[in-house]
Amino acid sequence: MIIKEDALMGYETPEEKEKKRLKKKKKKQKKQGDEELSYTKQSLEIIKDPKKVYEYTDKGKRVAVISDGSAVLNLGAVGPKAALPIVESKARLLQRYGKVEAIPLCLDTEGVDELVTIIKGIASTYGVIFLEDIAAPNCIELQQRLQAELDIPVYHDDQQGTAIVVLAALYNSLRITNKNLADLKVVINGAGTAGLAITKLLLAVDVGEIILCDKEGILTPGSKELNFAQKEMIRDDKINVKPGNLETALIDADVFIGVSTGDVLDKESINKMRRDPIIFALATPTSEIDPKLAKSAGAKVVATAYNRNSNQINNQLVFSGLIKGLLEAKADNLSLSLQVITAKAIAQLVDQVRQDNILPDPSDPEVISQITEKVIKAVNSEEPIIPQELEENLPLEVVEHLSD
Amino acid sequence: MIIKEDALMGYETPEEKEKKRLKKKKKKQKKQGDEELSYTKQSLEIIKDPKKVYEYTDKGKRVAVISDGSAVLNLGAVGPKAALPIVESKARLLQRYGKVEAIPLCLDTEGVDELVTIIKGIASTYGVIFLEDIAAPNCIELQQRLQAELDIPVYHDDQQGTAIVVLAALYNSLRITNKNLADLKVVINGAGTAGLAITKLLLAVDVGEIILCDKEGILTPGSKELNFAQKEMIRDDKINVKPGNLETALIDADVFIGVSTGDVLDKESINKMRRDPIIFALATPTSEIDPKLAKSAGAKVVATAYNRNSNQINNQLVFSGLIKGLLEAKADNLSLSLQVITAKAIAQLVDQVRQDNILPDPSDPEVISQITEKVIKAVNSEEPIIPQELEENLPLEVVEHLSD
Repeated sequence: MIIKEDALMGYETPEEKEKKRLKKKKKKQKKQGDEELSYTKQSLEIIKDPKKVYEYTDKGKRVAVISDGSAVLNLGAVGPKAALPIVESKARLLQRYGKVEAIPLCLDTEGVDELVTIIKGIASTYGVIFLEDIAAPNCIELQQRLQAELDIPVYHDDQQGTAIVVLAALYNSLRITNKNLADLKVVINGAGTAGLAITKLLLAVDVGEIILCDKEGILTPGSKELNFAQKEMIRDDKINVKPGNLETALIDADVFIGVSTGDVLDKESINKMRRDPIIFALATPTSEIDPKLAKSAGAKVVATAYNRNSNQINNQLVFSGLIKGLLEAKADNLSLSLQVITAKAIAQLVDQVRQDNILPDPSDPEVISQITEKVIKAVNSEEPIIPQELEENLPLEVVEHLSD
Repeated sequence: MIIKEDALMGYETPEEKEKKRLKKKKKKQKKQGDEELSYTKQSLEIIKDPKKVYEYTDKGKRVAVISDGSAVLNLGAVGPKAALPIVESKARLLQRYGKVEAIPLCLDTEGVDELVTIIKGIASTYGVIFLEDIAAPNCIELQQRLQAELDIPVYHDDQQGTAIVVLAALYNSLRITNKNLADLKVVINGAGTAGLAITKLLLAVDVGEIILCDKEGILTPGSKELNFAQKEMIRDDKINVKPGNLETALIDADVFIGVSTGDVLDKESINKMRRDPIIFALATPTSEIDPKLAKSAGAKVVATAYNRNSNQINNQLVFSGLIKGLLEAKADNLSLSLQVITAKAIAQLVDQVRQDNILPDPSDPEVISQITEKVIKAVNSEEPIIPQELEENLPLEVVEHLSD
């Protein structure tokens, strides 16, 4: 019987077929041998020079998107399985926009030590660790300990991501209000994951003065129930710890950054601030103040977490470009300098800075390519833009078992 | 200026453009809200019913291919980075042939307890755990403990994979030699990862008698330096522990299975065996006996690890179809029954069983689809083909901290 393929190919005698089959088989055998040899050779090269792992494997293209499901948006502690939909969606975003291999990973663990053990255990497979939706204050200790112990960047979207995009928004707000970082009095309302990360990055760029508030008022050494990270943070000289509440904190403030809860500000709050108030009201689902109300009270620049208003402050502006840049540069850590460079890159992407236009459009492909380019350049230049001395003296730079 | 797109689309007034832009923006805002809502809804559904994680996420499509780099082929303990090329290549094979999402993962750890902690920690993201190139006897305890504690199948290629393909080859060899499992005397040379796994699966199908040998001779309770797994294994009634060496073990044996080292058999060894000897000489890179020599000495069926000879015994026949089947069936463990069913499925794929044709061609797509189909059917039928009583009394069924 001549089957279809024979008919198309021209009929072959059984002998010809057998010859062909043997030839094909021989080729396949050679290939099997070659592959084994080549893996063995690659392994040996990596043993000799561990940096070669970037050459022979996809480590340098791969980012682990990790959550323990302890602080999922709008839901809180839901555990690893229930966190998987959101972690997968973040990985897909990174994959689609950053063109990197983003692997979702939900962890079933208890306590920081086990999280550190697990993430250190898997890190050699990845070029970057991307933490997501992990509860404070564990997440702060976790990011710091991992970054201190691993030779790849460790990024926490809710810490570094939020801090970077806030700093970018602040840079352009200052162009509108003609003010300098060094002269600013900044009130940060909310002393959790985001609030502390923003505080730290603002200290790194040397802002004038910061007041940290939570629902009990201004954080001071006498505040009750401070966690280790809050205690450490308010020790910094630039943190004003004069007791009071949010309203007293706002007197003569230049900037309000809210990462707290809805409707904590009113017209009078804004009237207490210095000229041209900058209001970042980032609470979800309700902002700290309605943007229209803030403007009518005299706020010069208003931003929220939502794109239904102008000036959306969204981590999406940060992570695809930054992660891609860190991977392509084979960076060994995510320094504060790199965070500042990323914030500047984002700020510079806005052509015409206006009150209602302080941040670029996240869907603009230039956002990712510009950030990536500047991050790669910065990693390769090795020139820190934050003075070594300042960086070493920042709070929470080395955290080891502080939460125990 | 009319740009290219305008020219194609028909010119729009600035007002029309603005209207379009706003409409698009509104749609995007709605989408953002919808997505958040939908992740929240999915999370809540998973909290209510954890099985829903298979519905709302890719857990059920995803297998973690895991090694600690402690036992890489031809190299031994090379560590996680140097193991990454081989682990990535295994993941690519699974991806290409099994059409599953296979994620490589090399672990930097020490000791079984930490391996258990890490793999348990990451397991909720995956539908199957695929272990690879982990040293004995740790790998035995690891697979058993993970399988006992997790609600997904845990497969170790060097244990279950090898045992399954050996059993498949044995089924068809018995058709040629007209012998029954229950009457067989089997000599297994090499009491490491593969040897012990093969022993266990042969005990599960109730072979007549097994003698386990290593380079010191037959394993007996008096043997020096036995590890916990070897000690446990030779306690089984079917293991013949009469002291002796490989040559005395072979007297009247029906089957020799070598997972040891090259050139340990000669013509005389085979002459000592019962009629129609079955020889699986699986050592790499050199077989326990040259296949031609074995045949000239009277071996009826000869198989090796290489495809340069007929009858290649290769895990590739097993893993793509089995892993795909386990994932699609949402299996919660890899039972011995499933292993036997997989071996039978492989054996049945050979149309015309002959001395030089006991296993199917791994490149035949039927191999994967048939195994997958039979595994799914078996998982859904829940009818164990190994009697409960036998399975419960097998050695190494529950291992907890035995190696400590």
